[in-house]
Amino acid sequence: MSTLVGSPLSVINLGIDAFADPIGAAGGGVTRVRWSPPAGGDIQVNRALASLVGNSVVEDANRQAFAAYSDAEPVLDGIGIAQEVIRGMGSRTLLHSGPPVAWEKMCGPMQGAVIGAAMLEGWAHDADGARALADRGEIRFAPCHHHGAVGPMAGVISPSMPVWIVRNARHGNLTYSNLNEGLGKVLRYGANSPEVLDRLRWMAAHLTPVLAAALQALGPIELKPLMARALHMGDEMHNRNTAASGLLMKQLVLGVLKAGIPAREAAEALEFVVGNDFFFLNVSMAACKSMLDAARGVPGSSMVTTMARNGVEFGIRVSGTGDTWFTAPAPMVEGLYFSGYTRADAARDIGDSAITETAGIGGFAMAAAPAIVQFVGGTPELALANTMEMMNITLGRNAAFTLPQLNFAGTPAGIDVRKVVDTGILPAINTGIAHREPGVGQVGAGLTRAPAECFNQAVVALVGLVQGVAAR
Amino acid sequence: MSTLVGSPLSVINLGIDAFADPIGAAGGGVTRVRWSPPAGGDIQVNRALASLVGNSVVEDANRQAFAAYSDAEPVLDGIGIAQEVIRGMGSRTLLHSGPPVAWEKMCGPMQGAVIGAAMLEGWAHDADGARALADRGEIRFAPCHHHGAVGPMAGVISPSMPVWIVRNARHGNLTYSNLNEGLGKVLRYGANSPEVLDRLRWMAAHLTPVLAAALQALGPIELKPLMARALHMGDEMHNRNTAASGLLMKQLVLGVLKAGIPAREAAEALEFVVGNDFFFLNVSMAACKSMLDAARGVPGSSMVTTMARNGVEFGIRVSGTGDTWFTAPAPMVEGLYFSGYTRADAARDIGDSAITETAGIGGFAMAAAPAIVQFVGGTPELALANTMEMMNITLGRNAAFTLPQLNFAGTPAGIDVRKVVDTGILPAINTGIAHREPGVGQVGAGLTRAPAECFNQAVVALVGLVQGVAAR
Repeated sequence: MSTLVGSPLSVINLGIDAFADPIGAAGGGVTRVRWSPPAGGDIQVNRALASLVGNSVVEDANRQAFAAYSDAEPVLDGIGIAQEVIRGMGSRTLLHSGPPVAWEKMCGPMQGAVIGAAMLEGWAHDADGARALADRGEIRFAPCHHHGAVGPMAGVISPSMPVWIVRNARHGNLTYSNLNEGLGKVLRYGANSPEVLDRLRWMAAHLTPVLAAALQALGPIELKPLMARALHMGDEMHNRNTAASGLLMKQLVLGVLKAGIPAREAAEALEFVVGNDFFFLNVSMAACKSMLDAARGVPGSSMVTTMARNGVEFGIRVSGTGDTWFTAPAPMVEGLYFSGYTRADAARDIGDSAITETAGIGGFAMAAAPAIVQFVGGTPELALANTMEMMNITLGRNAAFTLPQLNFAGTPAGIDVRKVVDTGILPAINTGIAHREPGVGQVGAGLTRAPAECFNQAVVALVGLVQGVAAR
Repeated sequence: MSTLVGSPLSVINLGIDAFADPIGAAGGGVTRVRWSPPAGGDIQVNRALASLVGNSVVEDANRQAFAAYSDAEPVLDGIGIAQEVIRGMGSRTLLHSGPPVAWEKMCGPMQGAVIGAAMLEGWAHDADGARALADRGEIRFAPCHHHGAVGPMAGVISPSMPVWIVRNARHGNLTYSNLNEGLGKVLRYGANSPEVLDRLRWMAAHLTPVLAAALQALGPIELKPLMARALHMGDEMHNRNTAASGLLMKQLVLGVLKAGIPAREAAEALEFVVGNDFFFLNVSMAACKSMLDAARGVPGSSMVTTMARNGVEFGIRVSGTGDTWFTAPAPMVEGLYFSGYTRADAARDIGDSAITETAGIGGFAMAAAPAIVQFVGGTPELALANTMEMMNITLGRNAAFTLPQLNFAGTPAGIDVRKVVDTGILPAINTGIAHREPGVGQVGAGLTRAPAECFNQAVVALVGLVQGVAAR
């Protein structure tokens, strides 16, 4: 004690500054560690977390879930019509992004996409008619994720839409996504003008047969090697798909030529593909879901298998808690706005595309895509920092997806709800920004984080299930 | 003086350690700055350098030369047959890479390529016949660079070969390069087996007409925007052309379809292009020469306009010294070898492809291409460091070629012979490695540096010319 009093003070202070301030004022050395108790000190969450950290049931389950995710081999298997290939979709149904949400609670862009899809399907002749149909409850709504599908932004998939079919060659599970329309005024951002619907009609009637014939001629395309190459070419495959789209296009060109498609139809289809640097996004999403679905339903696992937003709520699902959604209000997005738009125009975070981050790419692989900051904001240093930070909340690295900028380390993957709650580090997401009103479209792109509340809920829900597994 | 003796010594030591060692041994603080006099202390070079540094004639000339390089607008204008489009090439002539070299002094891979080209042209039926023809002096040899052309590795362009035509839309100058054959057993690496010659015949007879028709249908393709995009996609466009090849391919596909080429021919041609990630290299080289030729012949300028190697000698040309080559023995390359080969198999540094580094890409833009280290060796940190180091020996940055990894700084460009001599920092080059014997082909890829001696000679040669300009 006499030593302590007699020599210069050198103190490490965790958390509250009130302890550090007087020591500093008295001339003592203070190293301040920023810390706050998990979940803002919530007792229930902290007790749950304490029982899950180091828990061998959870550790074993996570090893199994992460291995299934890592071993998955998504292949692009073909294109089908939604109602023909998506199990249990039925007619008069629209799939949408994120967790479940009723028509009257949907955000502007999702309502805009629903109205557009109802007109596209011929259920209504105009926007008022479509709105009335929805008001009367004559459209069934379900999350894409409840049907093995994913859709970017509003994520609306209607029965007659063409969808990519991705098969996990290792575990057999099938996933789906719609086809990417390009940027700007597009259905997924809530636009529904005649040009938007005409483009969708052309895609179904003209683009799809060409792509389907090309894929038929090529056979299944392995997606992980293609995605791994794109990560070495500056893509993170959520908001930057330039390289991956080019690599897919190279394959499709050979397929188109092999299939003997007439030159004019081939040219029209390939011109659309060449002109759309986001063409691969929806394939990327279906591939990510394919890998993550392989990790679903492992009893006791704290690995996140879904992150998705409907523009109102952000929801996650966890391997060990099955189909339960843990939701919180969807956050706003910090980003760069297209000319003429500001933050006041922005809808909240929306879309199933956070499945990319869930699978370790997107914001988690942002280090691979420094040029993306010209689109979503931030700096190349931030891109590196985001990837490094995600290493604190993930179960491992995806050995198939290496990042040259981090000396070929695998991308951080397998979000552990325990680590998110324990560290307070929230999953980083790169995303597009839709206009808050129906019918407008995209207004920018930016960065956001998943809300903490989802992970707190998941930790609490997992405890009882883990005890059940241990008791077996 | 009493202060100096009384207080602890803190010394900065430049160069020779013999001064620093006793101070360090006596407990003094020594900061050692690594320094040695320019050009190893050579008096003539140092006098020349002293008269050129800060010289307003040189500064003005360099501003003019660098502006011309920066303003150049290379466009891919078409494909032609070498002897029909390359001025003054004539028949019975073979162009080769690097500075002038006589047949009997050529390295193995260049002799191998010459033998292959003589057979390709029908001047000889076999390798012995081709060799005899060259021995008897019946083939005229000239550097590609003397005819507005560039060729990678052996760089052999024979009269009937198809060549890319690049036009500088800003200044009107034309440049040429042959078509890329792919990797492995190829003429440019000195291989000349029947499969090599058959591929060249197929390229002339089948690939070229398809590409020519596609380019005709498309019109001129602007190369700087394409190259700028590729730099954001992990290419440095010397040893990594994956993205640029894909971007060019996207254009060509549309051209092929627009031109109405029959499906089988189109498929065969595009399959070759899709399968060759180096396809853009030769276009990149012609574009780089296009930009640098715009900077040629500015009286007094110390800017390097050519770096090229013939496998025996490394040569440079400087804007203010016109067509004079300054040469030194070609260096060895430190690199990664293909399975079954070692350093003992390697030829010396060879090829006109260092025109990419001269123009600020390749080794100078290595920061943009961290994944390249898996091909040429080194680490992503080295890739960054090489680009940063090149900023010390260049006149400026190319504002059109930004590097995301360096927060979108322009790539260092416009090598100043004065700065190279003054700093001792030698231009960094990424390159392929040919087998030293004729007929084998590529054995690896790696990193090297231009030899100092070339720059020392250039500085000395420039002095008299600068005095002449000043006297006018």
